[in-house]
Amino acid sequence: MTVFDLLDFIGTAVFAISGALAAMRQKFDSFGVLILASVTAIGGGSLRDVLIGNTPVFWMTHWEYLIVVFVSTAIAMLFRKRLAYFRKTMFLFDAIGLGIFTIIGFKIGLKADLHPIICVLLGTLSASFGGVLRDILSNEVPLIFHKEVYASLSILGAVTFYALLQTTLPININYLITSALVVVLRILAVKYEWEFPKLYKTT
Amino acid sequence: MTVFDLLDFIGTAVFAISGALAAMRQKFDSFGVLILASVTAIGGGSLRDVLIGNTPVFWMTHWEYLIVVFVSTAIAMLFRKRLAYFRKTMFLFDAIGLGIFTIIGFKIGLKADLHPIICVLLGTLSASFGGVLRDILSNEVPLIFHKEVYASLSILGAVTFYALLQTTLPININYLITSALVVVLRILAVKYEWEFPKLYKTT
Amino acid sequence: MTVFDLLDFIGTAVFAISGALAAMRQKFDSFGVLILASVTAIGGGSLRDVLIGNTPVFWMTHWEYLIVVFVSTAIAMLFRKRLAYFRKTMFLFDAIGLGIFTIIGFKIGLKADLHPIICVLLGTLSASFGGVLRDILSNEVPLIFHKEVYASLSILGAVTFYALLQTTLPININYLITSALVVVLRILAVKYEWEFPKLYKTT
Repeated sequence: MTVFDLLDFIGTAVFAISGALAAMRQKFDSFGVLILASVTAIGGGSLRDVLIGNTPVFWMTHWEYLIVVFVSTAIAMLFRKRLAYFRKTMFLFDAIGLGIFTIIGFKIGLKADLHPIICVLLGTLSASFGGVLRDILSNEVPLIFHKEVYASLSILGAVTFYALLQTTLPININYLITSALVVVLRILAVKYEWEFPKLYKTT
Repeated sequence: MTVFDLLDFIGTAVFAISGALAAMRQKFDSFGVLILASVTAIGGGSLRDVLIGNTPVFWMTHWEYLIVVFVSTAIAMLFRKRLAYFRKTMFLFDAIGLGIFTIIGFKIGLKADLHPIICVLLGTLSASFGGVLRDILSNEVPLIFHKEVYASLSILGAVTFYALLQTTLPININYLITSALVVVLRILAVKYEWEFPKLYKTT
Repeated sequence: MTVFDLLDFIGTAVFAISGALAAMRQKFDSFGVLILASVTAIGGGSLRDVLIGNTPVFWMTHWEYLIVVFVSTAIAMLFRKRLAYFRKTMFLFDAIGLGIFTIIGFKIGLKADLHPIICVLLGTLSASFGGVLRDILSNEVPLIFHKEVYASLSILGAVTFYALLQTTLPININYLITSALVVVLRILAVKYEWEFPKLYKTT
């Protein structure tokens, strides 16, 4: 298992936990918590695979992801209250997940011979659609439409990754730089409440 | 047409009726009623096929399913009030649908050479996603997240089916036992208001 | 680029604008506006392609669609208020989109060797699912379930197109007649508030 795989599993785990926490807030039953955790963690990658035609989708043939989801959900249930203390760590992991899932989506697009611009979109979609599904299933307007910059950082990450891919930089360094960029910008975005520039008047 | 096909059509019909009744409660127009009935009846199987890459999805090449949906919706509209008298029969049919759709999903997974655990999930997904879509489209939090045990019975059914598949038991007997198990447990679950064990504290 | 392509782009643009306007009403951030515009414009065609197995889906290999969406969203943001004056023109374009998307969906179904009845459904699904997604993502009950006749006109359009396909009529004339039929009926439907006949009692 490479460092990249490890980060991938961390991203999956954190997304699963965010889904499980949302489900517990809504008082779903335990089984519902597991479903929402799964959908949040593997929904984005599933949509990506389905749109490309990369089927059976990734978790059907690599079901270690499901184990990660299962364990993460159990942890979320057991340590529900304590997780509040780790809010900052969790947030950091979520930012890592955003960065990693973006890169994975992008790479899978390239492998399918798609145009780099499409690959950028695939990266963003992989990274953010799970959260959208989580919000729809808890009957809320998806956070992504309102929150401080989030999916746009994923686009920036994918573009950066692609730009660095054109250089002679070793791929592992590229992974590192891209993820770090997304993570740092995400931290700054939340700290300073960055918003996507208002391009239209709301009145 | 085998007994299994017959049960499959009954399951489709009952799911369609449940979608149509939900739509009429929400005062959808007649066309909307037909759409919601279709989505409830064939949504689960469609998602299953799309995730596996089993395309065009089943109802495109076996459109007798659409006829079943159409006729069921017409029946639901005509006998809307009388269906209240048949609530118990309907509920029984729905439980049959749950059992049958689980087995179908499981078998399709096996045929696609997927791991038995994935097949179990495919069975559950086939059986329960139509209802989730019905609830999302009527703008409600999916019942499956709150209701007394439902999707978990589907998992149990799929596991049982797989276990019996390892024996020399004729497949038809296996169908019967698995479906009967799901149906009986579902009846007990509703009668005694079984809930999935609370694995986390809600406070 | 043929006249048909042009109409296709007009349909895409109008659907994108309708998504962008809905997002701005909900005060989504600018990025959210772009996402909702995209989903509304290309969601129906994406579902169609995924259900058939026509992957990667159309906009991944023909990304001029994304440019159309992008430009349309920018226009919607810039001229948000002025668009109110063009409500009638917009509505006309939307009706054209309905007609065109229906025909495209139908033709793609035929090309995939599907039964004409399935092709009719594919046409309707291509034309109306984008709007359903738009409504779900803005957390509303899909308009299609309530509005004066809309999706049913798409079905009528697809049936007409298929009927005329059996004649010796040149295909371009067929395009014209079918689209015009859908547009005219849609105008009449809104003007005279046609509703789909009530086939069930609401009490």
